[in-house]
Amino acid sequence: MTSSFLSQSALNLRPSVFAQLTPTIKALGERCIPLHIGDTYRLPPAAARDALSKALSEHGNSTRYFKYTHPYGRQQLLEALVEKLATDNGMNVTTDNLQVTCGATQGLAAVAQATLNPGDEVLVFCPYWPLIKGVIMTVGGVVKEVSFEAAVADPEGVLAPLLSERTRALYLANPNNPDGRILDAAQAQGLYDFAQRHGLLIWSDEAYEHIVFDGRERVSLGALDKEQEVPRVISVFTFSKSFGMAGMRIGYVCAPSGVMQGLRRVSNHQTYNLSDLIQEAALAAVTEPRERFLEEQCSAYQEARDLLLTALPGTEIPQGGAYLFPRFESAEASWATLRAWLDKGLSSAPGEAFGGLHTNHLRVCFTAVPLERLEQAVSIIKAVGPV
Amino acid sequence: MTSSFLSQSALNLRPSVFAQLTPTIKALGERCIPLHIGDTYRLPPAAARDALSKALSEHGNSTRYFKYTHPYGRQQLLEALVEKLATDNGMNVTTDNLQVTCGATQGLAAVAQATLNPGDEVLVFCPYWPLIKGVIMTVGGVVKEVSFEAAVADPEGVLAPLLSERTRALYLANPNNPDGRILDAAQAQGLYDFAQRHGLLIWSDEAYEHIVFDGRERVSLGALDKEQEVPRVISVFTFSKSFGMAGMRIGYVCAPSGVMQGLRRVSNHQTYNLSDLIQEAALAAVTEPRERFLEEQCSAYQEARDLLLTALPGTEIPQGGAYLFPRFESAEASWATLRAWLDKGLSSAPGEAFGGLHTNHLRVCFTAVPLERLEQAVSIIKAVGPV
Repeated sequence: MTSSFLSQSALNLRPSVFAQLTPTIKALGERCIPLHIGDTYRLPPAAARDALSKALSEHGNSTRYFKYTHPYGRQQLLEALVEKLATDNGMNVTTDNLQVTCGATQGLAAVAQATLNPGDEVLVFCPYWPLIKGVIMTVGGVVKEVSFEAAVADPEGVLAPLLSERTRALYLANPNNPDGRILDAAQAQGLYDFAQRHGLLIWSDEAYEHIVFDGRERVSLGALDKEQEVPRVISVFTFSKSFGMAGMRIGYVCAPSGVMQGLRRVSNHQTYNLSDLIQEAALAAVTEPRERFLEEQCSAYQEARDLLLTALPGTEIPQGGAYLFPRFESAEASWATLRAWLDKGLSSAPGEAFGGLHTNHLRVCFTAVPLERLEQAVSIIKAVGPV
Repeated sequence: MTSSFLSQSALNLRPSVFAQLTPTIKALGERCIPLHIGDTYRLPPAAARDALSKALSEHGNSTRYFKYTHPYGRQQLLEALVEKLATDNGMNVTTDNLQVTCGATQGLAAVAQATLNPGDEVLVFCPYWPLIKGVIMTVGGVVKEVSFEAAVADPEGVLAPLLSERTRALYLANPNNPDGRILDAAQAQGLYDFAQRHGLLIWSDEAYEHIVFDGRERVSLGALDKEQEVPRVISVFTFSKSFGMAGMRIGYVCAPSGVMQGLRRVSNHQTYNLSDLIQEAALAAVTEPRERFLEEQCSAYQEARDLLLTALPGTEIPQGGAYLFPRFESAEASWATLRAWLDKGLSSAPGEAFGGLHTNHLRVCFTAVPLERLEQAVSIIKAVGPV
């Protein structure tokens, strides 16, 4: 058996729960309304698209975009990200705190590799981004699931009993994928203080940082680090959601400089560098004015959220992000509903992908298709109902 | 100290030996003749560049290139790679054997993660590609260095005494970076048979597959797998060298299907997917006729090799690849020579980056700059000489 050549971590990783749905979704082809993935129907900012075209028209016949570039990321982009982190996230950092990555996925893969030894534990706030479990397991880390809701309500009471001498970090997404939960200022401070008291890192996944509804305020956990003797927040960002550039694969990690030195060496051995052409698009997205683009995007996504909520009344209203996360009577009921919707051409994601505490749920993306298509999804859900 | 947050593997990784030269090289700016890196002055195939421009002009205002794509790689590209592996490498595989990666670097990072448990050993043929040591160490693997020359001369005699029950694989580059060594058919078979006898994997790094001089024949180790009950060659390829697309970051791994299933899960958690725009350029490079492009490239690089050899007579003549690897009297002499050349504006790479057996060497790239610039390098070397 060639599988005997596989490492324990490769064997431990399970095929995505989406995988079993792939043949059906493929067979549906264009008829499928693909609400199982966190994609968007919206275009990236015009500045980013123009930057790509301009780069190629000006330099497509030179070696400019075909040569190796700096493994940390292009200096100009790093400087623009320092500005962006100050204005958008209240984070006071320098280019020495930054590493450009192949999406937030490689960002978190680098974080896990740079900070976990095999057997080290991470408290993962549930429901969670499906890949984080595998990211941690890939490097031999151990996932301990904990309810996000309970953890923020009482960090010391809920989290402290889960700590062991192998606990290294808390992982949470803010806004959260899949349920759109956003930390308020007091909750953020509570978690930060808990991490400080117990000497833990915080892995703050801010993939959905700009997708915030109902005029809510949001704080970046990294902003709480600035006054501390020992900074402990590792923040992961991406251009995937804020700027509709998921397929381009560009994100970045911001970490205390001691951690970043090691993380950069890890990243260097994971991907070496990131395409300078892709960095060009990202640079334009963060240097051209972005307020209006982001406002319009939030407004469009909020309208989409509200439309989809009409089909799933009773679902907790997401404060941000791109998904509804309705709960059904049982895991079986959620799967039966998923299959019944899929029979009508609507795909959603099974709750078990998001943690063992949420197998009764489905995740339904409201940003993946335009409103008129989302209306078809609403009709299907209303017609089929929960099963 | 925040560095206490770092994992053992992050602590074990050393900053590149190039790092100490960076300030000097940066200060030289445009005056530097950068022969320390494996870059090229040549353009990628016109078809690849046109494909990028066409993609953006036709789809730049749609979401086509901004959405997630399949984590394995686009199906059309995988099918083209199956064809390419048959014609160029004599390898009979299917799309199930393939994973597109962020350069050969992520390819090898995925190979290491998918096949090594912490403490597992890899026999690494020296001199070696500088990043391979860190790639193995990142996942907790152990590097055992062995002379490439000795290993191919007598695999059983040289390699067998180095085996332990933790030995999992042989790693070699063919053509080799930095010395351009190419396996002849008998040597390839000898190594293959050795791996077969001892139940080892072979990690065959074929980054320089098409850069072969003097009309030499080259075999891919993966081609020897086809008749075997237990396939054991994992081949890693890239568009970086053959097609001058190093900065684009696209490569691919070809592995036995049992290994590939695990490797795909690992890759999924390292980068998720690769930019479809970049894949578009790669697709054009492997589907448009490439014989003439590759012939012209080899011919240009061979001319460059021969020019640089005039400055370093006595250096072993590379059979392929992009570098001369001259030997000096001592490690101190090689460093003194490196510094003396650098004072005149010529940068090269210290031998210690390529393994403990080769600290007396320097690596000098002959593909990084056009011939007229390489002539300046030749003048500097002739004027300064070895120190």
